[in-house]
Amino acid sequence: MNRKEKRIIYADNAATTRLDQDAFEAMRPFLCDNFGNASQQYSFSRVPKNALKIARETIASCINASPEEIFFTSGGTESDNWALKGILKTNESQTVITSQIEHHAILHTCASIEQVGNKVIYLPVDRDGIVDTNTLQEVMVNKVALVSVMYANNEIGSLEPIQELCNIAHRNGAKFHTDAVQAVGHVKIDVKEIGVDMMSASAHKFNGPKGIGFLYVKAGTALKPFADGGAQEYGMRAGTENVAGIVAMSVALKKACSHIDDRRKHLLKLEDVLLQGLKKYNIDFVRNGSSNRVPGNISLSFKNANGEMLLHRLDLMGIMVSTGSACDSTNTQMSHVLKAIKIPKEYGFGTIRISFNHENTEDDAKYIAESIGKILTTVVNAKLKRS
Amino acid sequence: MNRKEKRIIYADNAATTRLDQDAFEAMRPFLCDNFGNASQQYSFSRVPKNALKIARETIASCINASPEEIFFTSGGTESDNWALKGILKTNESQTVITSQIEHHAILHTCASIEQVGNKVIYLPVDRDGIVDTNTLQEVMVNKVALVSVMYANNEIGSLEPIQELCNIAHRNGAKFHTDAVQAVGHVKIDVKEIGVDMMSASAHKFNGPKGIGFLYVKAGTALKPFADGGAQEYGMRAGTENVAGIVAMSVALKKACSHIDDRRKHLLKLEDVLLQGLKKYNIDFVRNGSSNRVPGNISLSFKNANGEMLLHRLDLMGIMVSTGSACDSTNTQMSHVLKAIKIPKEYGFGTIRISFNHENTEDDAKYIAESIGKILTTVVNAKLKRS
Repeated sequence: MNRKEKRIIYADNAATTRLDQDAFEAMRPFLCDNFGNASQQYSFSRVPKNALKIARETIASCINASPEEIFFTSGGTESDNWALKGILKTNESQTVITSQIEHHAILHTCASIEQVGNKVIYLPVDRDGIVDTNTLQEVMVNKVALVSVMYANNEIGSLEPIQELCNIAHRNGAKFHTDAVQAVGHVKIDVKEIGVDMMSASAHKFNGPKGIGFLYVKAGTALKPFADGGAQEYGMRAGTENVAGIVAMSVALKKACSHIDDRRKHLLKLEDVLLQGLKKYNIDFVRNGSSNRVPGNISLSFKNANGEMLLHRLDLMGIMVSTGSACDSTNTQMSHVLKAIKIPKEYGFGTIRISFNHENTEDDAKYIAESIGKILTTVVNAKLKRS
Repeated sequence: MNRKEKRIIYADNAATTRLDQDAFEAMRPFLCDNFGNASQQYSFSRVPKNALKIARETIASCINASPEEIFFTSGGTESDNWALKGILKTNESQTVITSQIEHHAILHTCASIEQVGNKVIYLPVDRDGIVDTNTLQEVMVNKVALVSVMYANNEIGSLEPIQELCNIAHRNGAKFHTDAVQAVGHVKIDVKEIGVDMMSASAHKFNGPKGIGFLYVKAGTALKPFADGGAQEYGMRAGTENVAGIVAMSVALKKACSHIDDRRKHLLKLEDVLLQGLKKYNIDFVRNGSSNRVPGNISLSFKNANGEMLLHRLDLMGIMVSTGSACDSTNTQMSHVLKAIKIPKEYGFGTIRISFNHENTEDDAKYIAESIGKILTTVVNAKLKRS
């Protein structure tokens, strides 16, 4: 088959998503025509300045925040770094609590803050990847500055009990941050209801562009700036505003939030088609994560298989999936998340993550199931022949 | 005149520039079609991965660096913050030397590092805004970790003697960083020749998009990561790569660098037309900055005038200029740069910055001169009538 004609099924939406067409059209004028610096005084800057204002209001309304609580960043990683490094006092050793299954943007930031004398406690999770609220309560005997637990896990999709964890943190005088990069735009989030002090988000996970994200910071939170310089973002995050990126992010988020229910329904259907499709083959596998998941995130561990081999075979069939998280893709070891949920090794190494979004079809799900079935059956047959 | 029909003359290119059309066309496919995460293993990521590689090589070749020495950031401010905060050792008080006329991205970062126990020395400049190499030599008696002096000043365009300053720093065991945000793409820069250890750049200052920039880091420089997380940028700057922005930046920079000589010629002509045009009016003014400047940067101080009034009157005539730097635009005080060059107050408060780029025409320059002439003559006449 001619390479160019090959059907591509993109099923790695937890890694990144296609830019929404409306978001692209919304950003285009701010790239090409209304390119003025939003912080300037003259009339040419009014359009971008106003666009920033509207984008901030739009994003705030999507998570029930106030516009003044939204700070634009270059993405989820910056938001995470800022939240953790910006909340801690300098020249004072403090304690941070996080989970063992956080994204590297949190875990490596924790390693950094440990290096400068802070203490970090890494909470274990259960087989479903869920942090136990009692465990958090137990370790909060000492003074803790910050608790940071992700909203949804990127590898297995599990949704953490953020509101309960946040309540425990607050009752014990700690601030609470959540890395909601996999959740914003995918599940309904009301920051006032869950009560978090800070929340990270990244546009390219909800069909916005890469290189832009935001950090929600509850009014009154004593956060230091991460990047010092100009007076942008209320003096909290310096740098000429990426107006085009910000506008596109707001359009993408508004669209994602207004479709959460129908997309969930569609995604649960795709999950079902995929899992039913796999049942036709005599394959031993488990699905990872809790039943309360980000819709479309399907982490499967196939017994005695090799996730990397599976990824490449599927790639040859035009199917794009992931082994672990995108940021861990060059690592052939079992991911820290799979280790934390104590998956048996014979399953763990045979793990792939399929992450659908609203653009995927039932045919995609069916074709992926068939392809996995064929690959694993062929491998098993080959092994039988050799033995 | 109908507002929509009004001719707009954009002459604030030191604040930001129009995105180059070729750069836009280059970024578009990475926004809309080749949206894959560049760090993934499958074939769909090959195109963005390769585009990143080519962009890195292109940018490196524009400043005579190696590709491995180019680290993509979200812009000049992040690059500056990273260079300064990333080079200093934690839990050790160190000394940094900078100049009094740096951009706030440097000055406010210096304030931050002072707050955590480091010492910062702010070098004075002469009337032209130039740092004296002898003064640097004198203050380097004590152990200094880093010297950071800007390549070109954003308000008055003066080019600093970077190579000489860098040599002095190195002879005394210090590293050298330059904020070259106003210089990259505008003047020829050979990092090997000038010998700097780190150099900051921002795409939107050379007709690239906003929200993307880079930090040059000489091989072997012991710089800590600024944002911790995934393994992107050789593990030095985490976060999903903004492929579209990076590609557009490389296209814009290559174009800018290949046109440096003819653009300089054009810009010097525009400067001449503007200054000759102003001579026709009986206005008392000085031009700020040294004769060795970024071409097109024209800082003018009109005696007994008001820069802000001038900016707004010019705006009404369709001309976009700046008072000080873009990031200082809400501040009605005389800027730190004008104070540092000790401009007399009767001139200082009447300062505007006109910054042309290659898109401006001789007609633009002529029209701006005439407009300034008319405004200031009218103001003087009005004052005479009142008195």
